[in-house]
Amino acid sequence: MKLLEQRIQSDAVVLDGDILKVDMFLNHQIDVTLIKELGKELYTSFSAYPITKILTVESSGIPIACAAAELFNVPVVFAKKGQHSNIGSNVFSTQVFSFTKGKSYQINISKDYLLSSDNILIIDDFLANGEAVLGLKRIIDEARANLLGVGIAIEKGFQGGGEKIRKLGVPLLSLAVIESMSDGNIVFRLNNCKE
Amino acid sequence: MKLLEQRIQSDAVVLDGDILKVDMFLNHQIDVTLIKELGKELYTSFSAYPITKILTVESSGIPIACAAAELFNVPVVFAKKGQHSNIGSNVFSTQVFSFTKGKSYQINISKDYLLSSDNILIIDDFLANGEAVLGLKRIIDEARANLLGVGIAIEKGFQGGGEKIRKLGVPLLSLAVIESMSDGNIVFRLNNCKE
Repeated sequence: MKLLEQRIQSDAVVLDGDILKVDMFLNHQIDVTLIKELGKELYTSFSAYPITKILTVESSGIPIACAAAELFNVPVVFAKKGQHSNIGSNVFSTQVFSFTKGKSYQINISKDYLLSSDNILIIDDFLANGEAVLGLKRIIDEARANLLGVGIAIEKGFQGGGEKIRKLGVPLLSLAVIESMSDGNIVFRLNNCKE
Repeated sequence: MKLLEQRIQSDAVVLDGDILKVDMFLNHQIDVTLIKELGKELYTSFSAYPITKILTVESSGIPIACAAAELFNVPVVFAKKGQHSNIGSNVFSTQVFSFTKGKSYQINISKDYLLSSDNILIIDDFLANGEAVLGLKRIIDEARANLLGVGIAIEKGFQGGGEKIRKLGVPLLSLAVIESMSDGNIVFRLNNCKE
């Protein structure tokens, strides 16, 4: 998606450790106009799918998930992080390893809001090693719900998460795929489309 | 706001310890259609104020903040929780006590995204003891930005937070104010308006 690629090129900062700092528009300060366009693009790409619910993980995926959900006319459910989340004991839980933080955290979704009849689109802001998406997929599998697709704003194409998900046969669309960002030079994947 | 009061009466569950469970539409599963209406109502109420930025705290305030921000045409900045949030060291931080969890947590906002020229509207899903809003206010004061108002979805009117904020002279609008909810019987405040 050219709009997102252009925004990344103009505003994002590449930090040591393969970190792409986009907190000026995506995950700390939120440019709601841009986010709305990202939601629209994900909706357009997955509109033929009979989605009944959008799943994300708190917090940064929530704005894009809501922007898309409004167009699909379905609810969003966001997985809560931590063992002491205030959603009771009737939950699906799994551990997710964060390479950024070097440790695992638990994500939780109440069983009341994920049903075997649900057709799920996962939406998140970032896809790097794929741990969060694969964690959500484990929960969806446990709930016997159907994962129909994954929509991502920025995929770090050199970190393997996208490849893992595509190999599972899950339709994945990342609106911008970064092929490399060595020496602060961001190169996007060409011919990026849903697979 | 009748729409929200009706939804609370029909769906919310009162749990022990003055907990109002609204995670079926507000803070775990999100009814984006309702959230959009809440954002619209907050926009209408504060549209005369020259708001430049909406502040909230992750995670549950984010959807309403984004819904309102779209109409104000301003960015959202959400405070990140925890000491190890991934936003660098150039941050405003303060401790917020959670009565629900019985302990304090840190909230952080990058100094890059909160300027002395900013006119702030705080938006959050819940107002109980007011700790989160007062924490954001301390950060706004430290940044020498201007707090113009506070917009809340559900205020627990019997827990004192609203009174504290109104006494500070900050315009506060809570779209539903719960006067009491003993024995599971939810009573709303009449003539609820911005003060």
